[in-house]
Amino acid sequence: MDTAELTQLGQQLRVDSVRASDAAQSGHPTSSMSAADLMAVLLARHLRYDFDRPDHPANDRFILSKGHASPLLYAAYRAAGAITDDELLTFRTLGSRLDGHPTPRKLPWVETATGSLGQGLPVGVGIALAGKRLDHVDYRVWVLCGDSEMAEGSIWEAAEHAGHEHLDNLVVIVDVNRLGQRGPTRHAHDLDAYARRFQAFGWHTVEVDGHDVDAVDRAYAEALSTTGQPTAVIARTLKGKGVAAVEDREGMHGKPLPDAAEAVEELGGPRDLRVRVQEPPAARALRSVPTRPLDLPRWQPGEPEKGVPTRDAFGKALAALGTARGDVVALDGEVGDSTRTEFFAKEHPDRSFECYIAEQQLVASSVGMAARGWVPYACTFAAFLTRAHDFVRMAAISGAGINLVGSHAGVAIGEDGPSQMGLEDLAMFRAVHGSTVLYPCDANQTARLVAAMAGLDGIRYLRTSRGATPVIYGPDEEFPVGGSKTLRSSADDRLTVVAAGVTVHEAIEAADALAADGIAVRVIDLYSVKPVDRDTLRRAAEETGCLLTVEDHHEEGGLGDAVLDAFTDGRPVPRLVRLAVRTMPGSATPAEELREAGIDAEAVAAAARLLVETAVVR
Amino acid sequence: MDTAELTQLGQQLRVDSVRASDAAQSGHPTSSMSAADLMAVLLARHLRYDFDRPDHPANDRFILSKGHASPLLYAAYRAAGAITDDELLTFRTLGSRLDGHPTPRKLPWVETATGSLGQGLPVGVGIALAGKRLDHVDYRVWVLCGDSEMAEGSIWEAAEHAGHEHLDNLVVIVDVNRLGQRGPTRHAHDLDAYARRFQAFGWHTVEVDGHDVDAVDRAYAEALSTTGQPTAVIARTLKGKGVAAVEDREGMHGKPLPDAAEAVEELGGPRDLRVRVQEPPAARALRSVPTRPLDLPRWQPGEPEKGVPTRDAFGKALAALGTARGDVVALDGEVGDSTRTEFFAKEHPDRSFECYIAEQQLVASSVGMAARGWVPYACTFAAFLTRAHDFVRMAAISGAGINLVGSHAGVAIGEDGPSQMGLEDLAMFRAVHGSTVLYPCDANQTARLVAAMAGLDGIRYLRTSRGATPVIYGPDEEFPVGGSKTLRSSADDRLTVVAAGVTVHEAIEAADALAADGIAVRVIDLYSVKPVDRDTLRRAAEETGCLLTVEDHHEEGGLGDAVLDAFTDGRPVPRLVRLAVRTMPGSATPAEELREAGIDAEAVAAAARLLVETAVVR
Repeated sequence: MDTAELTQLGQQLRVDSVRASDAAQSGHPTSSMSAADLMAVLLARHLRYDFDRPDHPANDRFILSKGHASPLLYAAYRAAGAITDDELLTFRTLGSRLDGHPTPRKLPWVETATGSLGQGLPVGVGIALAGKRLDHVDYRVWVLCGDSEMAEGSIWEAAEHAGHEHLDNLVVIVDVNRLGQRGPTRHAHDLDAYARRFQAFGWHTVEVDGHDVDAVDRAYAEALSTTGQPTAVIARTLKGKGVAAVEDREGMHGKPLPDAAEAVEELGGPRDLRVRVQEPPAARALRSVPTRPLDLPRWQPGEPEKGVPTRDAFGKALAALGTARGDVVALDGEVGDSTRTEFFAKEHPDRSFECYIAEQQLVASSVGMAARGWVPYACTFAAFLTRAHDFVRMAAISGAGINLVGSHAGVAIGEDGPSQMGLEDLAMFRAVHGSTVLYPCDANQTARLVAAMAGLDGIRYLRTSRGATPVIYGPDEEFPVGGSKTLRSSADDRLTVVAAGVTVHEAIEAADALAADGIAVRVIDLYSVKPVDRDTLRRAAEETGCLLTVEDHHEEGGLGDAVLDAFTDGRPVPRLVRLAVRTMPGSATPAEELREAGIDAEAVAAAARLLVETAVVR
Repeated sequence: MDTAELTQLGQQLRVDSVRASDAAQSGHPTSSMSAADLMAVLLARHLRYDFDRPDHPANDRFILSKGHASPLLYAAYRAAGAITDDELLTFRTLGSRLDGHPTPRKLPWVETATGSLGQGLPVGVGIALAGKRLDHVDYRVWVLCGDSEMAEGSIWEAAEHAGHEHLDNLVVIVDVNRLGQRGPTRHAHDLDAYARRFQAFGWHTVEVDGHDVDAVDRAYAEALSTTGQPTAVIARTLKGKGVAAVEDREGMHGKPLPDAAEAVEELGGPRDLRVRVQEPPAARALRSVPTRPLDLPRWQPGEPEKGVPTRDAFGKALAALGTARGDVVALDGEVGDSTRTEFFAKEHPDRSFECYIAEQQLVASSVGMAARGWVPYACTFAAFLTRAHDFVRMAAISGAGINLVGSHAGVAIGEDGPSQMGLEDLAMFRAVHGSTVLYPCDANQTARLVAAMAGLDGIRYLRTSRGATPVIYGPDEEFPVGGSKTLRSSADDRLTVVAAGVTVHEAIEAADALAADGIAVRVIDLYSVKPVDRDTLRRAAEETGCLLTVEDHHEEGGLGDAVLDAFTDGRPVPRLVRLAVRTMPGSATPAEELREAGIDAEAVAAAARLLVETAVVR
């Protein structure tokens, strides 16, 4: 396409953005119009993409980080022949693939769900890392960002990561249209302000008039010829460009144009230009993923005497899984010596990624790698995964398959105190759509669950513990996701204690003490916190009449609430009592912490006695 | 103190860090030793602080962002005479004030809890903002950061905010000791790498040898004389400085020194230097907080016919509260036209803060302002508050009193789709220690709760809705926190529907439809999601035999789980059934979204019929 045609294509993208938003009577046409020329030049001149084969290994990857500009994306799809004009006009309606913000759940050309600002670039960094270090294919990753989202810290985590890794296969295009939702951005049209920041993080930058298609073309070419650094193309644009009623005006964010018909006319009317997007280069078979038999680590029950921390078992199992499966990768937030991903890193350095203390980028990188078909395990302290909650939420909207592992769960970590204690993580991960939440109590169980996670869909979370716990299961025991283990059981059970992780061992100790006093209680290890084993819980409730849950987590949203999942079918619920962390812990030894929180064996036994004898607590 | 004495003081701080960690047999002495000279010079020469009056309005504020270096902080307290040597040696033991990471819950000189890296500077920015724009007092805010935490995006959100606001009352000291937990940082001793980044964000920078006390003294003086910009003092240091066995060595993070007695000797033995910290200047009575009678907005039931969005009611109530109380401030994440903080901003521009799209800084600023005695309301979409989960978690550890308001809750927002829908927020906020979670369904209720929040302790969360809902309560109705409203009730009730927010109106509609068919059901508006109204729920359960919860939130951790809080005392639980958002929504109209999610009036009525007739669902 020549200059004139590119200009026409830009206008077509504007017209279609206006039309789609008008049909929906909602959406963000003005945010689309500012970036229309940037998109036109990319689509017609630089993107290499086979819309018929979105899984083509050599396809470039495009991410609309400013996801609210979805009309522009869908207009581009139409221009590329990927969707029809009829479908374009289904925008934002029930059943349409064209949601208000794009998601790969619905559209095969979308790499990651956007709509929470500041996430597209971090995920793009993950894909660019995959391209360089895993896929070894020369695709480019193009990320179109808004200027408003430059205020998000996640953008600078991503900039730091990309600069440090010399990701010259990554180009960010910043659509500096000066206006956020509510009014002007901090830096308005000061392109230098953005350029200085990217440069400081090691990027090459190009400043350009985002409505001069030839200048944009040259800027992209400069980005493509830049080696050793990622490039930021910083483009001066006007929001609502091309329609006087909205161009560069405040108060025009996120709403259809006041007079769409007039706007379309002002833009030169509808067009039907078709872009022949460059094919990606032929790509060789990309990835040899060696699959050897899985040789998980094995422990004998009771050995060693001091027990094994589940984080150690996780680390060893992940290393073994990495040997069996060449598609497994590990990422860590600079605490690999604590989470034990260091074992994987030692054996598989080529598939190991240090993300430093940047948990948003940690999760975003894993989302990007999963989008390229890799099976990531991203790990840090359970407490610090809360830093990436919004990324996890968006990953679920993407339908991304990622494994997240949080170590140092609960008060049981001891002296470090509450800032390092994961006490909200079960609640956070349970509430994520389609998630799986696993919380093992011994080494063999951990190893099995680490392997099982890899084959699941969606967000899978594994919670590990810092301190050693006894090995109570044999190495050949199986632990299906959604299952549980009944550790103590008799026909005389008067109560069921439901525990997971460290509290399983407290529950066993309590049960044995109670048994010595002639009080039989059942003990269930609910290692699968989501989904829960409804049948076993229901049966235990019916047979013993009362469930006592005990968990190293705050009272809300954790194991106690999870148990309720088994009892919401309308049938009568048994008596339910919860022991959980209700106070704010301080520093103390692990045993003192469990005691202070009232979740140790003694507390379990005391609650059980009270329930068996008097039926009511507190 | 002269150079020699300062040097001796630095050694004393090292010795005491080693001693405290040795007594505890845990902690981070090497991370303390790198910053000992930086701390010595600050304490003896520049900090203005009255340890006997931590509430002195003109006190400088010191934040240890690298909270794991707590031994250094406590050693400084000892040097200042604030704690005894005996107390120093209680470090990290049960019942001690000297936790592994410092928190203001226990120590009056700590401004904010740290221990999750990258949070001290953001909170410091909040305090510096308060100093400039609210307190109008010339205190300085000093923040000591580690180099590892520079990888956190939140640091650059803070840098951006401080640079843009020209916070020349803020000094960050970066202890560049080259080593993180697991190994070298990205930039090792490249001080320029950090300086370039801060400069790009508008900061003045000074690079210095962090063990040259005179050079450090000059650097601080330069910071104090810098106007119009915050200053970053970037100091080259050695981790474990002064003890050859650990100095600048990997693998020495977070553990006591191998031979503490020898280390103390190598450092010249114990000392007992006392620092006379500069007094803060005399300060006038700081803040005239006008308190006028609260004149909340009022609506008449049923008016206007189209209803009122609770976000509108929130905005108007907050503006009114701001008129009544001069200590109320509002912060927003660049969506004030959506959250309706714009009403407050218009009436009280001097107490209104635009945080742009940076939710971590949004919450951190509110924590900083709360530390200075202000009553902040920080607002953005409920979905985007997940971005600040770790800051909320840490704010709870601080015991900070902040109000967080999340708008655009649930699928009821309609066309924008799942990225903008708060569907995990109730779970997130319920699991925060000591939190209050409120979810109003009409305008008058919202206004009352907005006012009530201000007087509570801890983290208080209010969830508001985008669309209009009918006004069903009178303007004089009261809504105590921990209460509920029973909207439909009779002696013949065969079921209780428990709802909150938008689903209250669906529940009413369902109840009326059921009543027309001769099926009486009770309806409870559970506007206080945490704490819940146990008595009312228990009574309803006993009288009607079954509770059906319906919520615009994912199934886990929200209203359905909250109801269980009323039934964990060991007494029998009634039948419990939950309606919640179990699918991944797309774009559609609000009514279609509620229907698709199975939480509209029709779904409630259908579930109720099934329960009444057959006793079991699904």
